Amino acid sequence: MKPWSRLQNIYYMNRYAERIEHLRAFMRARDLDAVVIYNADPHLSEYPALRWKQVEWLTGFTGEAGDVVVTMDEAYLWTDSRYFIQAESQLDGTGIKLQKARIPGSVSVDEWLLASQGEGARVGVDSFCTSVENYKSLIARFDVVCIPDMLTPLWEDRPGIAQTPIYSINPGESVEEKLDWLMETLSEKECDYIIISALDEIAWLLNVRASDIEYTPVVISYLLVGRDGVKWFALKDEIEDDKTSATIELLTSKGIRCLPYNEVSIEISSLEDALIWVDRQTLNIEIFSAIKCKKYFAPSPIQTRKAIKNPVEIDNMRETHLRDGVAMENFLHWLENKVNDGSRVSEWDAALKLAEFRRQIDDYVENSFETISAYGAGAALPHYHTPSQNAPLLMPSGMYLNDSGGQFLRGTTDITRTIPLGVCTELEKRDYTLVLKAHIDLASSVFPSGIPGCRLDAVAREALWKYRVDFGHGTGHGVGYFLGVHEGPAQIRQNLSGAGLFSGMIISIEPGVYREGMFGVRHENLYLIADAGESEFGHFLKFEPLTMCHFDTSILNLSLLDEWEIAWLDNYNRRVYESIGTFLDEPVRSWLREKTKPVK
Amino acid sequence: MKPWSRLQNIYYMNRYAERIEHLRAFMRARDLDAVVIYNADPHLSEYPALRWKQVEWLTGFTGEAGDVVVTMDEAYLWTDSRYFIQAESQLDGTGIKLQKARIPGSVSVDEWLLASQGEGARVGVDSFCTSVENYKSLIARFDVVCIPDMLTPLWEDRPGIAQTPIYSINPGESVEEKLDWLMETLSEKECDYIIISALDEIAWLLNVRASDIEYTPVVISYLLVGRDGVKWFALKDEIEDDKTSATIELLTSKGIRCLPYNEVSIEISSLEDALIWVDRQTLNIEIFSAIKCKKYFAPSPIQTRKAIKNPVEIDNMRETHLRDGVAMENFLHWLENKVNDGSRVSEWDAALKLAEFRRQIDDYVENSFETISAYGAGAALPHYHTPSQNAPLLMPSGMYLNDSGGQFLRGTTDITRTIPLGVCTELEKRDYTLVLKAHIDLASSVFPSGIPGCRLDAVAREALWKYRVDFGHGTGHGVGYFLGVHEGPAQIRQNLSGAGLFSGMIISIEPGVYREGMFGVRHENLYLIADAGESEFGHFLKFEPLTMCHFDTSILNLSLLDEWEIAWLDNYNRRVYESIGTFLDEPVRSWLREKTKPVK
Repeated sequence: MKPWSRLQNIYYMNRYAERIEHLRAFMRARDLDAVVIYNADPHLSEYPALRWKQVEWLTGFTGEAGDVVVTMDEAYLWTDSRYFIQAESQLDGTGIKLQKARIPGSVSVDEWLLASQGEGARVGVDSFCTSVENYKSLIARFDVVCIPDMLTPLWEDRPGIAQTPIYSINPGESVEEKLDWLMETLSEKECDYIIISALDEIAWLLNVRASDIEYTPVVISYLLVGRDGVKWFALKDEIEDDKTSATIELLTSKGIRCLPYNEVSIEISSLEDALIWVDRQTLNIEIFSAIKCKKYFAPSPIQTRKAIKNPVEIDNMRETHLRDGVAMENFLHWLENKVNDGSRVSEWDAALKLAEFRRQIDDYVENSFETISAYGAGAALPHYHTPSQNAPLLMPSGMYLNDSGGQFLRGTTDITRTIPLGVCTELEKRDYTLVLKAHIDLASSVFPSGIPGCRLDAVAREALWKYRVDFGHGTGHGVGYFLGVHEGPAQIRQNLSGAGLFSGMIISIEPGVYREGMFGVRHENLYLIADAGESEFGHFLKFEPLTMCHFDTSILNLSLLDEWEIAWLDNYNRRVYESIGTFLDEPVRSWLREKTKPVK
Repeated sequence: MKPWSRLQNIYYMNRYAERIEHLRAFMRARDLDAVVIYNADPHLSEYPALRWKQVEWLTGFTGEAGDVVVTMDEAYLWTDSRYFIQAESQLDGTGIKLQKARIPGSVSVDEWLLASQGEGARVGVDSFCTSVENYKSLIARFDVVCIPDMLTPLWEDRPGIAQTPIYSINPGESVEEKLDWLMETLSEKECDYIIISALDEIAWLLNVRASDIEYTPVVISYLLVGRDGVKWFALKDEIEDDKTSATIELLTSKGIRCLPYNEVSIEISSLEDALIWVDRQTLNIEIFSAIKCKKYFAPSPIQTRKAIKNPVEIDNMRETHLRDGVAMENFLHWLENKVNDGSRVSEWDAALKLAEFRRQIDDYVENSFETISAYGAGAALPHYHTPSQNAPLLMPSGMYLNDSGGQFLRGTTDITRTIPLGVCTELEKRDYTLVLKAHIDLASSVFPSGIPGCRLDAVAREALWKYRVDFGHGTGHGVGYFLGVHEGPAQIRQNLSGAGLFSGMIISIEPGVYREGMFGVRHENLYLIADAGESEFGHFLKFEPLTMCHFDTSILNLSLLDEWEIAWLDNYNRRVYESIGTFLDEPVRSWLREKTKPVK
């Protein structure tokens, strides 16, 4: 840890310790034994909006996954292996202890509470930030006290609920078509209503986007669809911008009523003698408690429907990836020159430069997540946080890892390249090659339609396992269309889950290897899941590359690759050049032609 | 279908229709809307003992998996894809209809009953042949009437409960050691007792074997282990044979009380103020209902412990497989000569001849399952039943498949070889090669300790999927030590299951391809799961071959195999020759030397 960082921690320690103590006074006044604070907003978003960055506010921890439990004498943060090192550093001096989640022998929030506070303990939660599922689990053992906006009385200057301009997009299917499908799905289950809380589901259904949350272009809102029409609870303030007014006018013309955000509870509590579809994982307990009619519990039908992209979305995603590839190649060319000519380039500078290239693309809106720009040992942290000040400098040896992506009006990108900057060790070369081998083995696989992604995970890892190497994160995640860069239900990972892979889905392939204190390698492309033909044995699928950016071949250990794997690589690199070469200026084009030459 | 078979069906039709009608009269008298008959004995064995072949008695269907539902006007048999063709043929003319289980859109027994009879219908079951798990599922929707030995009043000459000579074996761990471990496990969970109903678990724990069930050398019995000792409910008749007397004497000397089989209910109902461990999947509802004390529900701890073989068991399994390999090679040599010199050899003759070779092994007890001996199109049925009369003859073209195994005093074997008998088509050659490729890819894999088998399944299938080929059965199953040829919990298959693979387990690898009306290919070996080293990324495992019998290389399409796959094959075949060559007489030895020469 650098000296400035230690000073910073001492300053923060006081701040966070003070907040925890304020919370305990609040708990004492309400006779609570414990409070649980989930890293969630009222829509159970993966990245909570600013107003709900409550875990960061309370503890200083900035990772994406973290739940907090505070009792009268203890405070713990639960997070997974991606953030162990970061959490230990950020919690240092705050008095808050780390609980390692998702490792063998780990203890869940519920189990820890039971052991520490006993059955029937009074446990407070923010009812807006607790899913029905989490609540059901807590209530089985504890006396759960629901407190809406629990932290607001303690949180000076707590941000309000964002309301950014709302605009329409045209992704190949009209709102009417989508609503017709949804109404049909409801009637199949004899449901009268569905309450939709997941923000990407609402954005998909209404073909709207905004910037209420960083990285994911959604509108903070609820949607109630049912027998007496569609009600969208989206308005936080007076609407003053033209885009929003036009969008609301358009939706109103389609019979969709746009209502104030906070009227959802009143509206939903007025439903009587009806059956309403509820997704336990994405609805918060505050809104759920307002429902007085009967409930039908099931995952939202929109999830899988949204994941299967339509032909317009697929075409646009292909086009967007060509443009993103151009930005990437311009960046990689710039990077190589800068490092070679001895310029002072830090991880942060590199991240900024790439954003600059992406910003030149017409449709660019924002990044799709926080760029990981990591040189050497930093890359050994799969979720490295690039510091804006005093970031490490890139040197002409070893490897640099860049994991980044953009939100564009016509698609979402996510790419990781690991780039050799000069002399590499044999271990770096071997790991670089093995991770590419793992990537190729999965990318070239063929598989039955509907197969759960967890069954394919080993097709990538086997290449690593043979060398007694493995990695702790998933191999692939679904990606939205100008929506969340992580999109369910499809994924390719270790955890057993029945969610199937179907034609039209978009998914990442991103194996890695991380050597603590040394280096990290990850090779990531996005792929369209495409038809691979029928036979008497069924319908088969394959991966069609969307990402168009070459893989560096200069440090490959070719003895580790089979002939057909080398052929895949040569073919992919040639395709990259053929697809985007004409969009590149000289000398980048000539440089890329060299870079994409066959390895043998 | 052959003419004699149709006549047979007409005769049977009357018999089975009559039995169903008798059952309906029985149902009417008891006011039952439906009865469910599971293909199970009171111990939920995979192969029920003769007395409990009730599905076969009622319907004529002889497959291993089949549940029956009879209502006042309908009768259905549920079975899976392995038996669709067989069931359709055997049910032809009986009035019993087939329900296809485990296919997309299939309806379960419970769902069908709900739709047909409605909630709250009176459903009869044989309480001895219904697991607690199945009962819990039924009782949630129906008024379940438990009838012990339900079919006995209708079943003239129903076989009694077998009592065959019981003998002890010495598999490297004493009964005392095993009981000490079990008592410790019970106290960890604060249990006072465990009731064990699964026959292979009892045989393992007490180091006893018998022949109460065909193919699996177990004693039909219950075992109660707990704070006041061990009670074994195993005695059905007066004991008259010396082996059994000696075994009982030995166990008695260890403090184990041997009691009559039917006293288990009385004994278990007398437990008070205690906590008893119950495995819902293997205990029947009749014995379960007798329990008056508190229950702890969990899978039996014996399952995983038994699956991890001790060093003596492993050594004995290796030795047994050498002997089994000798029998196999003698058989394959005999077969090749017979077919080449134009002798008349039927599928049945071949099965008998192989059994004859196995019987020459000192420790041979019986076969470990019904031998599948199938030529040509017959082999396209993964669970082909070789007819004892008019079995097809083997011709000098196409392929012959033999899936067989033995029970030996020091191990259990299970092997499939597909043997080209002469000219083969290009498709036969391709499929033969691809299935071998799939086998090699999995057999040579390395994987993290504890990985669920379902995550490895695709490592084999990917070789087939690339050619749009697949197969409907699992890729591998656990195998017992002189116990069940199918042994849980480990397996390698499509269905998601968290049961892990650990060092010391024994498992089959047996991919296949089946072309209806043409041919079938399956290549099966048993493997020991063995250590493959540790690294910073964890503990890794690999497969070490136990089966020692060459794979025929004469019809390989070498262009489909990678160099390293060919090297695996050459290495395996060389090892077979080196391991068992010296145990073979001339000319078999010279023949095997030729057969195991490197392919290139």
